[in-house]
Amino acid sequence: MAAQTILFDFTLDTLKTADAKQRQEVVKIVRNELEHVFPQLELAYQLSMEDGYFAVLEENKDTIITCRIFQQGLLTINVEYYLADGKEPLMSFDTMRTMELILRQKLDSDRSKYLPPIKRGGYIDIYMTSSDERIIEYDIDSLVYEARSPFQKIQIMHSKTLGNMLILDELQNIAESDLIYTETLMGRGIENYEGKEICILGGGDGALLYELLKEKPKHVVMLEIDELVMQACNKYLNSICGDVLEKRKTDQYEIVVGDCVEYMKKFIAEGRKFDYVFGDLTDIPISGAPIGECWDFIRTILEHSFMLLKPDGKYLTHGNGTTCLESLELFEEQLRLLKPKVKFTTSKAFVPSFMEEWLFYQVTFA
Amino acid sequence: MAAQTILFDFTLDTLKTADAKQRQEVVKIVRNELEHVFPQLELAYQLSMEDGYFAVLEENKDTIITCRIFQQGLLTINVEYYLADGKEPLMSFDTMRTMELILRQKLDSDRSKYLPPIKRGGYIDIYMTSSDERIIEYDIDSLVYEARSPFQKIQIMHSKTLGNMLILDELQNIAESDLIYTETLMGRGIENYEGKEICILGGGDGALLYELLKEKPKHVVMLEIDELVMQACNKYLNSICGDVLEKRKTDQYEIVVGDCVEYMKKFIAEGRKFDYVFGDLTDIPISGAPIGECWDFIRTILEHSFMLLKPDGKYLTHGNGTTCLESLELFEEQLRLLKPKVKFTTSKAFVPSFMEEWLFYQVTFA
Repeated sequence: MAAQTILFDFTLDTLKTADAKQRQEVVKIVRNELEHVFPQLELAYQLSMEDGYFAVLEENKDTIITCRIFQQGLLTINVEYYLADGKEPLMSFDTMRTMELILRQKLDSDRSKYLPPIKRGGYIDIYMTSSDERIIEYDIDSLVYEARSPFQKIQIMHSKTLGNMLILDELQNIAESDLIYTETLMGRGIENYEGKEICILGGGDGALLYELLKEKPKHVVMLEIDELVMQACNKYLNSICGDVLEKRKTDQYEIVVGDCVEYMKKFIAEGRKFDYVFGDLTDIPISGAPIGECWDFIRTILEHSFMLLKPDGKYLTHGNGTTCLESLELFEEQLRLLKPKVKFTTSKAFVPSFMEEWLFYQVTFA
Repeated sequence: MAAQTILFDFTLDTLKTADAKQRQEVVKIVRNELEHVFPQLELAYQLSMEDGYFAVLEENKDTIITCRIFQQGLLTINVEYYLADGKEPLMSFDTMRTMELILRQKLDSDRSKYLPPIKRGGYIDIYMTSSDERIIEYDIDSLVYEARSPFQKIQIMHSKTLGNMLILDELQNIAESDLIYTETLMGRGIENYEGKEICILGGGDGALLYELLKEKPKHVVMLEIDELVMQACNKYLNSICGDVLEKRKTDQYEIVVGDCVEYMKKFIAEGRKFDYVFGDLTDIPISGAPIGECWDFIRTILEHSFMLLKPDGKYLTHGNGTTCLESLELFEEQLRLLKPKVKFTTSKAFVPSFMEEWLFYQVTFA
């Protein structure tokens, strides 16, 4: 089940929106066109303002259309109705396009636009927001798995082109399409992992562990808190994690289920050191100030990670969308505060399932 | 200038939407929460229906909020107001998120959602529709170039992460981020172009010509109708077309400005043959039947292309989004109708600026 909201916009000459009489002319043209699609349309309510106009039109109390004129030279039309499963939409793409073209012409509009119908209240959420607050509709066609662990809401959704996607607390994490994410995080072809000792913080989807093991490291230890995430990924993300989540311990690697900070403290106490530490945990928050629980966690992770690194070791982690300059700057500020001092380089990649370009950090002792 | 439309959805227990009294309770909760953000909110209009409820609320006749309850268990709230350039939005992301969370709790809603504000009537159109009719908001921050040629509307827009984008008649064609598009179209690493004779139909952005020339072909002839597209790309898409559009003729290549069908006929009459012909023209239409001008053009192109190919030659072209099965099937049907018979393989790539996976064809004589 879902309601459909269809949005049309037309820019208008401000002469057409300047006074009440002109605005009535515009409304007449709009009503006339809408009636071709909705023949039983009736005017339910109108509100004349000094600087604009608003009306509610309805057909059989099923379809409700609001129509607003802004004196700045803009007309918006919102069509909303309930579309039961399996029913044909009231407006096809052809109908929308035709209405847009005719109204653009009749209203002498310079720029006009209609958006694909927005589906509201459906069982599967197909809209996600990019790190820089853009709306992106995914071609998700099924919810494969859903569960709530003690730590988060876990969903595996299937996208027609991206394959299975891991979504944690409504945030897209990784999809079958995203080998580039893992390869950029680990700097494939740049870093040499052969014979190295590696620690992964987080990484519950298994993709990083799977790719690292191909590079013949001496040993990898992975500290992941959420058993359920690993079970879900082992079942539904095989193409990116292979069978590494099947076993928790082999000669090559060990997966420890628990709080990574606790285990880092334990390793530090034991004097255990690594060539590489990977921060594959929560994203950097998109917030205006480096305060709150989440930033405290990031600082704790960074401080402990560098205590685990050999002098020539590297800390590798993901940042945020490359357009989130403020958030990235805050993260880099945290890096600059570390003692002993560190230096860093960055790399970036367009990650298909994020539908945006992402920044990655390579941090070493200065 | 732009109006902002903010859409909230809440699924409700159908007990809460079943009768008028219950629905009034829902409305009361909603109004109460909205008033925290819009303290002067007034009820302007309400429409009680047998199976639902609709109301218009307004603040100072500036912000108009519609609120609709569907008996199927859904509440939609649409907030719309005019946001002048440089002004702060009335609802920040934090405000939206807080309102969503509080209402979700107070309404005991299973699923709720708000979309990033939809910007309407802005000078730059930042919303594009994918081949399978999904809405995608781009991080476009400027219109670099706009002109109308005798053939089409040409725009170069700048995206923060995709670089400059070529948009023809409102359709995204190629961006600086899209080397993968050209490489998949030409099958880099699979095809051997050394010493070969090549004909490009279209290709006005110059990217294909630029990449092909790196592979040391004997000669490339490119047939492009739109001089203005080439001028725009030469100026603004250098990173993908290099300097190939600077000159129209060298020892290695020739760019002919004109109708490719005319020139194909001329080449056929001269008995000229190629190792490769590239169809880098208009996209395959997303239509229900292979009829109309556009499909006639596709058939003409295909028929003439194969008359230009050597017996072991190849016709390489782009298809459509991989989810547009119907449209791809129609194209393949046209291929099957060709005489002499042809056979084909396909390849695919996720094209960053399309924000979707695209299909490419490699066609040879059967």
